[in-house]
Amino acid sequence: MSELTLHPDRLFPPEATTRGVASRLYDQVKDLPIISPHGHVPPEWIAKDIPFRDPASLLITPDHYVGRIMHAHGVDLARLGVAQGELDETASRAAFRTLCEHWHLYAGTPVRYWLENEFVDIFGIDEVPTAENADRLYDAVSEWISRPTSRPRALMESFDIEFIATTDDPCDTLEHHIALAQDPSFTRRMAPCFRPDAYLEPARKDWNERTDRLADVSGVSIDSYADWVAAMENRRAFFKENGAVSTDHSHKDLRTDVLPEGEAERIFREARAGSASRVECEALQRHMLSEMARMAADDGLTMTLHPAVARNHDPATLRDFGADVGGDVPISVEATRALQPLLTRYGNTGTFNLVVFTMDETIFGRELGPLAGFYRNMYVGVPWWFIDAPDAIRRFRKAVTEPAGFHKTSGFIDDTRAFCSIPARHDMSRRLDCVHLADLVVEHRLSEDEAARIAHELVVDIPRKVFTL
Amino acid sequence: MSELTLHPDRLFPPEATTRGVASRLYDQVKDLPIISPHGHVPPEWIAKDIPFRDPASLLITPDHYVGRIMHAHGVDLARLGVAQGELDETASRAAFRTLCEHWHLYAGTPVRYWLENEFVDIFGIDEVPTAENADRLYDAVSEWISRPTSRPRALMESFDIEFIATTDDPCDTLEHHIALAQDPSFTRRMAPCFRPDAYLEPARKDWNERTDRLADVSGVSIDSYADWVAAMENRRAFFKENGAVSTDHSHKDLRTDVLPEGEAERIFREARAGSASRVECEALQRHMLSEMARMAADDGLTMTLHPAVARNHDPATLRDFGADVGGDVPISVEATRALQPLLTRYGNTGTFNLVVFTMDETIFGRELGPLAGFYRNMYVGVPWWFIDAPDAIRRFRKAVTEPAGFHKTSGFIDDTRAFCSIPARHDMSRRLDCVHLADLVVEHRLSEDEAARIAHELVVDIPRKVFTL
Amino acid sequence: MSELTLHPDRLFPPEATTRGVASRLYDQVKDLPIISPHGHVPPEWIAKDIPFRDPASLLITPDHYVGRIMHAHGVDLARLGVAQGELDETASRAAFRTLCEHWHLYAGTPVRYWLENEFVDIFGIDEVPTAENADRLYDAVSEWISRPTSRPRALMESFDIEFIATTDDPCDTLEHHIALAQDPSFTRRMAPCFRPDAYLEPARKDWNERTDRLADVSGVSIDSYADWVAAMENRRAFFKENGAVSTDHSHKDLRTDVLPEGEAERIFREARAGSASRVECEALQRHMLSEMARMAADDGLTMTLHPAVARNHDPATLRDFGADVGGDVPISVEATRALQPLLTRYGNTGTFNLVVFTMDETIFGRELGPLAGFYRNMYVGVPWWFIDAPDAIRRFRKAVTEPAGFHKTSGFIDDTRAFCSIPARHDMSRRLDCVHLADLVVEHRLSEDEAARIAHELVVDIPRKVFTL
Repeated sequence: MSELTLHPDRLFPPEATTRGVASRLYDQVKDLPIISPHGHVPPEWIAKDIPFRDPASLLITPDHYVGRIMHAHGVDLARLGVAQGELDETASRAAFRTLCEHWHLYAGTPVRYWLENEFVDIFGIDEVPTAENADRLYDAVSEWISRPTSRPRALMESFDIEFIATTDDPCDTLEHHIALAQDPSFTRRMAPCFRPDAYLEPARKDWNERTDRLADVSGVSIDSYADWVAAMENRRAFFKENGAVSTDHSHKDLRTDVLPEGEAERIFREARAGSASRVECEALQRHMLSEMARMAADDGLTMTLHPAVARNHDPATLRDFGADVGGDVPISVEATRALQPLLTRYGNTGTFNLVVFTMDETIFGRELGPLAGFYRNMYVGVPWWFIDAPDAIRRFRKAVTEPAGFHKTSGFIDDTRAFCSIPARHDMSRRLDCVHLADLVVEHRLSEDEAARIAHELVVDIPRKVFTL
Repeated sequence: MSELTLHPDRLFPPEATTRGVASRLYDQVKDLPIISPHGHVPPEWIAKDIPFRDPASLLITPDHYVGRIMHAHGVDLARLGVAQGELDETASRAAFRTLCEHWHLYAGTPVRYWLENEFVDIFGIDEVPTAENADRLYDAVSEWISRPTSRPRALMESFDIEFIATTDDPCDTLEHHIALAQDPSFTRRMAPCFRPDAYLEPARKDWNERTDRLADVSGVSIDSYADWVAAMENRRAFFKENGAVSTDHSHKDLRTDVLPEGEAERIFREARAGSASRVECEALQRHMLSEMARMAADDGLTMTLHPAVARNHDPATLRDFGADVGGDVPISVEATRALQPLLTRYGNTGTFNLVVFTMDETIFGRELGPLAGFYRNMYVGVPWWFIDAPDAIRRFRKAVTEPAGFHKTSGFIDDTRAFCSIPARHDMSRRLDCVHLADLVVEHRLSEDEAARIAHELVVDIPRKVFTL
Repeated sequence: MSELTLHPDRLFPPEATTRGVASRLYDQVKDLPIISPHGHVPPEWIAKDIPFRDPASLLITPDHYVGRIMHAHGVDLARLGVAQGELDETASRAAFRTLCEHWHLYAGTPVRYWLENEFVDIFGIDEVPTAENADRLYDAVSEWISRPTSRPRALMESFDIEFIATTDDPCDTLEHHIALAQDPSFTRRMAPCFRPDAYLEPARKDWNERTDRLADVSGVSIDSYADWVAAMENRRAFFKENGAVSTDHSHKDLRTDVLPEGEAERIFREARAGSASRVECEALQRHMLSEMARMAADDGLTMTLHPAVARNHDPATLRDFGADVGGDVPISVEATRALQPLLTRYGNTGTFNLVVFTMDETIFGRELGPLAGFYRNMYVGVPWWFIDAPDAIRRFRKAVTEPAGFHKTSGFIDDTRAFCSIPARHDMSRRLDCVHLADLVVEHRLSEDEAARIAHELVVDIPRKVFTL
């Protein structure tokens, strides 16, 4: 068997001076609490303190990062338990064994990095997973799951998660958030995040139905665009009352063009009548996104944009396994012109905070850095999805720091539903930021004292400011 | 005179730990045989074991990499012997002298790296080329050429080329491949590669004529799209019978849109009648490319795509010197949407293998890595043309490994007609892969044992799997 | 107080071998004179040897790099003195204090690097600026300004600026350049640069008026496109007579399409009559840009292109503070096809020199390097604006050297109106080039002797050749 260990200096470069600086900086931030302003952990897990079921539903089925690499090597997603309902022990064990058998194919990927961290630090595993030891490791993870200290609330404590946001539909009752807020035994903070994508896309088949539901839930009957705005404002207010600090938006592009007076009303009515054209629907969507920025400038909820994913690239996978199972693929995105309508309106005034994420690295230095380096209300989101990985994060800091500095970036987001990966992901981010800072120190571009202050700000002060915590 | 030497640790970073790891990894792969699944060596060279003519036609005239840099500094391509027919000694010597005079302008380019390797390791030259020593070096290369051990077949042995593919027209008789296959004295393997670009571009002036020739050669008279398909299948079968393992395709973009039922037939007939519009021709071309994927899924030939080159950028150069003399320039390319029609049909089923190359580095991490990290039949091609260079290859590994791992890349291809550069190119690739792996090892992201296994897989197992050898 | 120092090895990597090589290379170029072929220093400063006014108008108001970061953190540009006319001491002191208070927000940006160099090396400051010491530092800079050795001409000597170009309107009288040329006490060289953007954009509101002025100044009445050409040629000749070596052009894109015979005349007349469409105006602009290349091929003025900026992104900032105050943002740009009309006409013949700059790093390796590595008259501009920063410059060299070598790049340009930053910027460039060369040396891709020669060529020989000095 090969030993599985975590080197204390992992992710630090080997050159001794840089490693020394990075390591000293990291020592000062490694034990700070975790702030997780955007992610996908289901709120009932925390509210009801639901124990995890089994190793596969802890580590495999909810995590498209894990599934897609095996799929790319010919493993059927069904064999991994994806979209198979609750797994019995045989199925869970088989899925876990499949992961162990494919362990070597993850070499060099962030999934491997996170899983190694979890296996060693959380589950206490000390052998590299293989086909041979898969059952033994399965048993170890199962045993860990069965402990009282492995339930979500206990983990909130032991992981030291100070703040966590979930992602929620505007029509959600937020019952779990409300319950938690009234529970004095819960000393951490869980907030909802308002995610209204579907309600901003009149071209969707279910848009009218969703709009009706929005009307029901908000108590605003929606016959006009003005009604829609009122209903949205109503739900945002409800979210804010119940702890929300941000809204999240993911459309194909970043365009925020505002329609001429009257056009939004006209197209909205056509869309409700089912007679708006594709082009009109898209125009209305962009107008609505700008309207969301207007609402944010009014209510102070931070607005995060996650554009440019071709979702459900493979229709057969969507049909058989549903969305969010690994079949989304990035596309290029334009920001300079797309965000101009929004930024010229709300970019320099009021308390509005905008965070723009991308999976298209080319815009970090060319567009997002320069925009955030001018507009006071805009921040560059720390890498997300596909590029939330060590080498990509290092490129991000090298691309964005020069045009925008450190203080116009968002702080790390983990964006995950893989609960046990949260500490590993935040730890990874801290290590990489310390490496970037150490690079500046050893090239005599920054003093170590200032680097230490910035390392701390990146973990604590900056996310608190950007997400108004 | 300045000494020309090859440092045993060339391309390895100077930091001692990393260099140590890289060097140990490299020691385990440096002597493995060369697998060259895509290139442009003329098959008759090997079949007839034709001796090289002279230094200029060995090193300069067939290699657009060499010519273009001198051209960029004002050297007329004619002076280099390009498109001048067989060179007499005066002309060859003059061209070689011009190269030596311009040696310093290649500093930092991959051409310089390959040539230095060839000069020292193959020709035994130990001085930096200059105007002064040019004639002496010319004589040394000439003398080397005259040796029996310098003939192509002997070099196949001494370079340890286990497999080499040529690039061939669908109408080719493959006589050289057939001859070699029947020659028991040839212990290596040379395979044709089916390259049908011209037959898929109905907008070309010579398309009808080529289609007629395809009909003649295949024995299928081509009056309909269905006939064209049958003729293509016939030629693919002929290529496969004679050792082909892959087809290669290079169009301007990567689009693979499939035409509605009947449209392909209709446009095909228009194109044969010379009355298809430019837009229709392009639509048919994309449909045909998707059809090629369908054939590949049926016959198992690996499909490689090399898109997005503006060929023959300068018409005057094309007129005076022909194609492939250095005047091709990359353009940006889109993959996520372009490949969707092909991948959703053939990406997850059967034995189909697709390798996508690019000269647009922006899509490595954004599109190709994520696609290959999901679709089981797709691989990311190791850098090609303009980016088959040390720094670019390091960026490639850093961009692709995180989203797709090592095992969804293609293995190195040299894509060259410069026969003597083949060992240098493969050696360069091995060194750079070892450096990337060493980076992961010294950052404690991979054990050295696992890195060694992957280094071996990258050279041997992966190309064998991807090209079904 | 924290000490402010400049490390002699700043920007050099920490690894000892590389640092040693970089340092030795740098020692050989650090004291070479400065050649500044493109910038924005007002010519009257030098001609009239006008003393600087005060610290804010020396360091803050003319430098959009400095202002934009503070603006991005909520500082009103008015508070920095931007567009407030001549600042009284209170205003200047307040602006300077604001800069000191925001010092930490510049961490990791090139502005911080330049300012630290200026503060230590020029003003003799040895403390990190803070709110507390701001007034003291203000006094130190004021005192420095008051010295005779701090006037522009004395600084030309002490900075060792051998050549500096200004940027001038085609209708400019060049009185300052003429005066300087006749002044025997001025031993350096200042040249105008012909910047005709506004005259090439018929869609601008002021185009007709400017064209009238061009007619007046050139003495060519402009009733036709041919007249416009003659007037332009007249002004270029005037500029050349008075020392100009180059023309500079910055349009949204790089397209250089040539209109069919007669079309330029037709559209020109429509534009003069105010009846040309937006599309026609753009087509004429592209034709005019190609015409500029034709003139350059005739008169030998080097042509520099700086495309792809969305200027004045925020209309409110433009209204309140004017142009060039930090609100310009890059957009993506295409070069391969856009430059084809120009390059196929003038790229390979005559004495024409073309330098193409970009803020879109994606085209360095994909398009500009390959183009400059083929066309003899084209050079890749060293990074400009937003990417004239250490990490970006290192990426530039790594992207461009492999396809084009060192000798098809332009030499460093500072492009600044912040006079005191010129030495820091050129020093930065020299350090970074030495680091890139050192990387090649320690990876055994280049000998240290050859690297030393190239380091020298990059500073002296290459800009002299490219700008025909």
